Amino acid sequence: MGEEAFEDLAEHLQRREYEGREYRHVPDYRRGVERGTVLLEGVVVRGFPKVPRTLVLSEGVPNHFEDAEVAVEEKLNGYNVRVACVDGDVLAFTRGGLICPYTTWLLDRRLDVDFEPIFEAYPEAMLCGEVIGPENPYTSHDYPAVDSIAFRAFDWRDRESGDPLSVRQRRERYESFGVPQTRLFGVYDVDETAAAVREAVAELDAEGREGVVMKSADARTQLKYTTSAANRGDLAFAFSLPFDYGQAFMFRRLIREAFQSVEWDESDERARERAHDLGEAILLSMRDSLRTVDEGGTVGERHTVRGDDEAIDALVEHLRGQGLSLEVETDRREDGDRVLTFRKRAQSTNDKIRNYLDGHVVRE
Amino acid sequence: MGEEAFEDLAEHLQRREYEGREYRHVPDYRRGVERGTVLLEGVVVRGFPKVPRTLVLSEGVPNHFEDAEVAVEEKLNGYNVRVACVDGDVLAFTRGGLICPYTTWLLDRRLDVDFEPIFEAYPEAMLCGEVIGPENPYTSHDYPAVDSIAFRAFDWRDRESGDPLSVRQRRERYESFGVPQTRLFGVYDVDETAAAVREAVAELDAEGREGVVMKSADARTQLKYTTSAANRGDLAFAFSLPFDYGQAFMFRRLIREAFQSVEWDESDERARERAHDLGEAILLSMRDSLRTVDEGGTVGERHTVRGDDEAIDALVEHLRGQGLSLEVETDRREDGDRVLTFRKRAQSTNDKIRNYLDGHVVRE
Repeated sequence: MGEEAFEDLAEHLQRREYEGREYRHVPDYRRGVERGTVLLEGVVVRGFPKVPRTLVLSEGVPNHFEDAEVAVEEKLNGYNVRVACVDGDVLAFTRGGLICPYTTWLLDRRLDVDFEPIFEAYPEAMLCGEVIGPENPYTSHDYPAVDSIAFRAFDWRDRESGDPLSVRQRRERYESFGVPQTRLFGVYDVDETAAAVREAVAELDAEGREGVVMKSADARTQLKYTTSAANRGDLAFAFSLPFDYGQAFMFRRLIREAFQSVEWDESDERARERAHDLGEAILLSMRDSLRTVDEGGTVGERHTVRGDDEAIDALVEHLRGQGLSLEVETDRREDGDRVLTFRKRAQSTNDKIRNYLDGHVVRE
Repeated sequence: MGEEAFEDLAEHLQRREYEGREYRHVPDYRRGVERGTVLLEGVVVRGFPKVPRTLVLSEGVPNHFEDAEVAVEEKLNGYNVRVACVDGDVLAFTRGGLICPYTTWLLDRRLDVDFEPIFEAYPEAMLCGEVIGPENPYTSHDYPAVDSIAFRAFDWRDRESGDPLSVRQRRERYESFGVPQTRLFGVYDVDETAAAVREAVAELDAEGREGVVMKSADARTQLKYTTSAANRGDLAFAFSLPFDYGQAFMFRRLIREAFQSVEWDESDERARERAHDLGEAILLSMRDSLRTVDEGGTVGERHTVRGDDEAIDALVEHLRGQGLSLEVETDRREDGDRVLTFRKRAQSTNDKIRNYLDGHVVRE
């Protein structure tokens, strides 16, 4: 895919600017080109493809893979980043195709990964990974080994064609450059994969981790499956901001729980426990948010980030530039770093909860 | 509102036929005219107005009513019917504006209500009530006093203007004609209404009943509030057919639970119990449906109706005419009646559950 094909998409493109350089990106899913695809100074950086999901491992895995073998890797709960080098600059692109100045700064200064030699050897590479950890401006989640924030590679593609390296080649290459990667549970015969995934998922679930991504050896076919802990975490989060999260988002996670319960042939007692956990994720998180607003507080995603002054300022400006309303809670210094805690104000949720608590009626 | 104003709505009208007579109705909510409004042989039968809901009694009730006094009546869980006499025939109109042949037959032969003298005295009357009971083609729910099906009046309006009688006048008039009505909990000072409703709702909740409708003395202002039992019942029902019920339907009921828990200032323990009940309503009903499909069965609303041959045939034809796919489970005779048990096949739910169980992936 070249600049010309990209021009055909012109009407679907959004213009943005990064440090005085204009770029364009594809903000929504479209036929023929991935969401998040970027055009910057004549260079195309392809979006990361959507990964389909199965609700039932035993049937979905053999159905989806025509291959003899399937690699099972951990799916991490953070944000998806593509790293590419354009005109000598190593840049971090988020899923939707924005250049995130904070992530770009992180890559260069904090993530214990030296990207320069990789791009010297492979200038057209698009390095795909998850940025995880508690000090995270987008998706904060605790991982035992991560105090602040970290990068874990899970894919390596050609930035223009989007073609991936095979799983084996990719893992070896990242290894050779000392780049940390997502965990590989193993490579299995396709007929053994569902059972292997179920075991991996049980282990991940017990640790509150997200799930797995299965990949064909050539990495061209992908499939994901998540833990109940991840479903519940997502639900608790979404229902804490019920009027800002899509109902489809909530619904899908409820459905997943039912399919998992049936596939795993749970006893009535075990299913009832799952139901109770699910109910708590939904109701107790809504209740907390209603109480917060009732007591005059504000609800919204809370994040802490750590960096130098300039990086933090750029992040705040970047988020506000996307229309987010940020409330700074604390802004302090620690070990020479600036540590900022802020809340992304969830406008609809704050307004609607307030209105309903004030007795505005619902006409539905 | 006359025939002329109705004609202005022409593009929004749907044509239907009832025993060879053509009529038109308003199938959706529109500005200026209620959903379910009907035009039949030059006569307008107004739709029943949407009743707004409050999520918080203490604030919503005084906010909504400008009146000194509020009547609190029980809201029943059945289907809303308007009864009007057109050209000598007493007809039953469902909420959406269809003439239901079975309900029309019921009114005449089974409901222990003699409508003829009412229409002789008040030919322009529109008698509004709920048809309740376990043998019910639309909304089946058990009520202790109802073995099969029954009518409970809750409103009396002018069919053309939609103007209601006052609560007092309406109750007296139905009483004088011997028509059974919904329960009146009482008429309260507006400032005492929220507390009275809360008490009534606690009692109704314990009995698994639906809720209340509050009305100004002139019956022009209405407000509803439902029990947790009703929310849970709706959720269990909707999640038993998850791909046929709107996600907004489910979401609204989850929200209601959270507001009720907060308004009632529940302890953590009590809120956790509520959450568990909620989780069971969601997950266990989905699980049942998934298992039914997994074992080769069909899911869908199951109903039993009782009547003469002609009335049952007319109902089946009426439902199929609306595009419903019916599966007859049993068709037998009892005490001279025909008793039919059928299932309204929930197409999307059957198909999607089957597909996902077969391992079709989700691209979302």
